[in-house]
Amino acid sequence: MDIKSYVTELAREAKEGSRVIANVPSSLKNDALIKMADALLKRADELIRENSKDVEEATKKGLSKAMIDRLTLNEKRIREMSTGLMEVASLPDPVGEVTRMWQRPNGMTVGRMRAPIGVIGIIYESRPNVTADATGLCLKAGNAVVLRGGSEAINSNKAIVRILRETAKEAGIPEGAITFVDIPEREAVLEMLKLEDYIDLIIPRGGEGLIRAVVENSRIPVIKHYKGVCHVFVDRDADLDMAQEICFNAKVQRPGTCNAMETMLVDREIADRFLPPMLKRFKDAGVTIKGCAVTKGIYPSVESASNEDYYNEYLDLILNVRVVDGIEEAIRHISTYGSQHSDSIVTRDYSRAMRFLREVDSSAVFVNASTRLNDGYQFGLGAEIGISTTKIHARGPMGLEELTTTKFIVFGNGQLRQ
Amino acid sequence: MDIKSYVTELAREAKEGSRVIANVPSSLKNDALIKMADALLKRADELIRENSKDVEEATKKGLSKAMIDRLTLNEKRIREMSTGLMEVASLPDPVGEVTRMWQRPNGMTVGRMRAPIGVIGIIYESRPNVTADATGLCLKAGNAVVLRGGSEAINSNKAIVRILRETAKEAGIPEGAITFVDIPEREAVLEMLKLEDYIDLIIPRGGEGLIRAVVENSRIPVIKHYKGVCHVFVDRDADLDMAQEICFNAKVQRPGTCNAMETMLVDREIADRFLPPMLKRFKDAGVTIKGCAVTKGIYPSVESASNEDYYNEYLDLILNVRVVDGIEEAIRHISTYGSQHSDSIVTRDYSRAMRFLREVDSSAVFVNASTRLNDGYQFGLGAEIGISTTKIHARGPMGLEELTTTKFIVFGNGQLRQ
Repeated sequence: MDIKSYVTELAREAKEGSRVIANVPSSLKNDALIKMADALLKRADELIRENSKDVEEATKKGLSKAMIDRLTLNEKRIREMSTGLMEVASLPDPVGEVTRMWQRPNGMTVGRMRAPIGVIGIIYESRPNVTADATGLCLKAGNAVVLRGGSEAINSNKAIVRILRETAKEAGIPEGAITFVDIPEREAVLEMLKLEDYIDLIIPRGGEGLIRAVVENSRIPVIKHYKGVCHVFVDRDADLDMAQEICFNAKVQRPGTCNAMETMLVDREIADRFLPPMLKRFKDAGVTIKGCAVTKGIYPSVESASNEDYYNEYLDLILNVRVVDGIEEAIRHISTYGSQHSDSIVTRDYSRAMRFLREVDSSAVFVNASTRLNDGYQFGLGAEIGISTTKIHARGPMGLEELTTTKFIVFGNGQLRQ
Repeated sequence: MDIKSYVTELAREAKEGSRVIANVPSSLKNDALIKMADALLKRADELIRENSKDVEEATKKGLSKAMIDRLTLNEKRIREMSTGLMEVASLPDPVGEVTRMWQRPNGMTVGRMRAPIGVIGIIYESRPNVTADATGLCLKAGNAVVLRGGSEAINSNKAIVRILRETAKEAGIPEGAITFVDIPEREAVLEMLKLEDYIDLIIPRGGEGLIRAVVENSRIPVIKHYKGVCHVFVDRDADLDMAQEICFNAKVQRPGTCNAMETMLVDREIADRFLPPMLKRFKDAGVTIKGCAVTKGIYPSVESASNEDYYNEYLDLILNVRVVDGIEEAIRHISTYGSQHSDSIVTRDYSRAMRFLREVDSSAVFVNASTRLNDGYQFGLGAEIGISTTKIHARGPMGLEELTTTKFIVFGNGQLRQ
């Protein structure tokens, strides 16, 4: 069978599966999720055996230590995948929720009801845990999933899918609800992105290169985020101790994540007082500082930041520091160089706090809190399939609700259009 | 200047405009809309003069009477455009609305606030009123608009944009908030669809060919509907008089619209009683009937429906009639041949009504009401920029809310990620 027919057949199977799973009651979905969680633990040996093939191959190919680490499954990681499925089982089912309902003058009642999206394609890179996480969330929201993982994790992913699919089937979930593109060719992805009659939404998870390629080639709607160039602005009226804690947490707590701070903006009025202890603390923690001219004037032992640096997502212990004339310039900097991901102001001033919230156009805007809190669990969504910086459908952390659509439902008693 | 630079420059201007209009207060936007409505009336002569150039050209080219009718502006239509802008001015502003707000265990308060999407591209065909309608809605929701109308209406559209843009500017709205691609080449559209850094959403309005071309070439998210193949299912427990009124209204009241019924499904148990008077009434109204074998058995003087006919959006006084074995087969028919637009069941049976609402996966699902009621005004949204059958972001009639996105806002007092 050629690649196009193979992928089309798979997506058609998913579409069929989606029609069934859309109407499966919560109790059955939860039961399946719990059994799937259990099966991952019971068959951990099988998972580790298949995973070791991928790890061996990756080592042979000379992949980086970080990549091999991301790829590796051990008991702890298998337990995390399993726990993730259990948690999803315990969340409320969004399907069927009527978010609003109102009466019209002609007597009909109109409401909006949450419904599954249908078939969701997940295109992701090395981490095999995405296979289980994404499957659990899609299934709970009544969707079928078409998974396409990275070729370096092919054996691990196939094993996870085999376990989940077999278990789900025994629990009464149609096999089509969990499908996996198990051929490594890039062409398979390109064919997948053309199947708008079968796949309703694509969520790519991985580096900027992968995501740009998906957006460029997809006829199917894509929800994505390219990068997180996040800012903390320390206002002239900030509590400077709080500002120091927030900036340190935003940069250092886990620098490799998309909601970590990449540029710290400091109001000129307090730069003299705020910067020396703050930058010393960063330096002590091993952070490389790239400062603007004013920053260098105040604290000479830093590198110089170029204009290009302000666009960078370092994902590392590197930080731009820029002194600005006030909130106006801070907001302009964020709108010019930022990625509309997570931005925070530290201030005690009411009107500047409100202005920052209103005018900064990012997926999450914070007053007096760390950008690292932009996360589905931290916000109380219960789970997260990713953070979207797309403006439409879902922006910010995407939980179960964001994996549904709505439909209008109308209760009439003979209403006609006049 | 080449086409690519021209369109890019225009979109960049729109992006700049969007940053300003996103933060303009409602009172100023409403004031501008009222003045724009007024200016269209005051400068009606100018509009009719420019429009007559388009009409003349269309007549020379031998365009169909229907197309020339759609293209023509007269005093009545200008008044309708003007009234439309006044109505949008009177609607509540969605921007800044906080739809939910909740407290987290660490003491931070998280909310979701409506914000403008940014820059919206509208690609449309002959009707020049879309120019004013779309501009009014986008502006009210705090967005900048990039308009691209059909080449056959170029003079009319340019005149409308000139009036709106000049008036908006006088009222304090940046010119970039209303931009218009005034070169006829198709290449301009293709360039526009690549500008994902400047344009956030594309809404195409027109025939299926236009919409498919847009989807195929766009890197920007697209919200669209291809066609409306709508159904009414007359259940065995229907009030047959009500069913007759609903089916007649759904087909005949305005057959050229996307929410008109194209196929009537009738439960076998009541087909004998329901079909003869119903089909006679349709025939008397000039409707051509294409029936399945059973329908022909009951009412021989109809044409035969082929399998292909069930996929058709006739937009005309033509109707498929199919007798089905019950709700199961009706739902299967709708899911196979329908376009997920508007579907209705007529019944007095509680559990079949609820099942139909739950299982039919369309933008609007009705019990005991005409499919023709799937409309932003009928549903009480106050306005409508189109009906979406896209699953993501907005499904069904799109009003002002659907022209916004949300952002998470967080009120903290020093919260960090642990």
